Amino acid sequence: MTYCLGVLLESGLLMASDSRTSAGIDQIASVTKMEIFENGGSHFVSILSAGNLATTQAVISTLRQSLGSGIIGTDLFAAVTMFDATQVVANTLRAVMARDADYVRAYGDPTGSFIVGGQVSGEPCRLFEIYPATNYIEAGPRQPFLQIGESKYGKPILDRAITPQTDMMEAVKLSLISFDATIRSNLSVGPPIDVLVYHNDQFTTTGRHTFGQDDDYFAALRTDYAAQIIALVEGLPTPPMNT
Amino acid sequence: MTYCLGVLLESGLLMASDSRTSAGIDQIASVTKMEIFENGGSHFVSILSAGNLATTQAVISTLRQSLGSGIIGTDLFAAVTMFDATQVVANTLRAVMARDADYVRAYGDPTGSFIVGGQVSGEPCRLFEIYPATNYIEAGPRQPFLQIGESKYGKPILDRAITPQTDMMEAVKLSLISFDATIRSNLSVGPPIDVLVYHNDQFTTTGRHTFGQDDDYFAALRTDYAAQIIALVEGLPTPPMNT
Repeated sequence: MTYCLGVLLESGLLMASDSRTSAGIDQIASVTKMEIFENGGSHFVSILSAGNLATTQAVISTLRQSLGSGIIGTDLFAAVTMFDATQVVANTLRAVMARDADYVRAYGDPTGSFIVGGQVSGEPCRLFEIYPATNYIEAGPRQPFLQIGESKYGKPILDRAITPQTDMMEAVKLSLISFDATIRSNLSVGPPIDVLVYHNDQFTTTGRHTFGQDDDYFAALRTDYAAQIIALVEGLPTPPMNT
Repeated sequence: MTYCLGVLLESGLLMASDSRTSAGIDQIASVTKMEIFENGGSHFVSILSAGNLATTQAVISTLRQSLGSGIIGTDLFAAVTMFDATQVVANTLRAVMARDADYVRAYGDPTGSFIVGGQVSGEPCRLFEIYPATNYIEAGPRQPFLQIGESKYGKPILDRAITPQTDMMEAVKLSLISFDATIRSNLSVGPPIDVLVYHNDQFTTTGRHTFGQDDDYFAALRTDYAAQIIALVEGLPTPPMNT
């Protein structure tokens, strides 16, 4: 399993992913699920991956090898919009699945899913989720975040607190709390957590940080948040029921 | 779907359940999933149900009809411990499944699951979860709560805040927040929420409350909690990353 999150804010984009990969509970390793494709001032594309690791790595490697070919539909940097860039990723997933899926299926699920976020010059930041079926949906003001993988544990804090107007650093904190909720409950999601912050029209990221297992800030955030939640609830009115 | 929760505290027991039942998104109704079996000062047993409604209602009705027979293994009030009482529920589920499951399977999943909590005189409160396989597990100090149905959205708040020492009314508030998290994300879980509070050695409950869709307290709790969470997170330190 995996947990990846993309958040589309008025000020830009936040992408976050865990690093746990497992093929059974006795075969665990750490990989990055976050990739960045930058092309000067014209394209900034970040891709988060979930699902079969061989499939998603094949997609990413194929995308990298196709950069600069100029071929519409396979070269990310030839995309004129983020919608087109997302179609390039979907096309690549479709090609990898067509080639490999029948060989893999006997051993496990070959599918993958992606969150694709970024900006192509001439339009604002956009954020998409590609399903294993290779079709995709786009985030918007009514649904400013998209999740793939183990999404349920970490969703309530985002539902309650994230809006398009949320400040970027507040969104980072909320995302880390969302990851903490997931990591507490699902062994197949684990640190380090990669977090990327992208501000509109920058076409590069200065804010990328990896929060490791023993990261002091993340450890304190987890502890402080849990303690303050208890205090917060103690301050709420007592239920109107006999005891 | 359904969400039911049992919490075993040092001071007693808390049971809570939603009321949504659905056979498709255009066939929705409201039922209680909480049943109470009281026998003077000797037995207090509360049962929460999830799964196929016909199956779980057949189990509950059979249990009621068998009360007072004195037959070990079918009469809840003949149970000498809560472990035995849970086996009575499991036996009944096994019998209902043996009779009905083959007829139902073509139309959907016939299985059910239960949370069984209460006290038999001579021992402390105990709390069990019965799986669809009809085997069961018991809660304890390291895992003081058990969930059935749509359990993921509402788990992080409980993981962070519930311990066996938690005050009963604090546990009620935390449970309502857990239900709110679930209701926000899963249409097949809905109010009213039945909450039952049982204090050790009472063998009855004075604290039973139904929080409806328009319940003022529940509505305020939902709103206040979300607002205060945002304020809480704003008060946490800023992440150590460039922006």
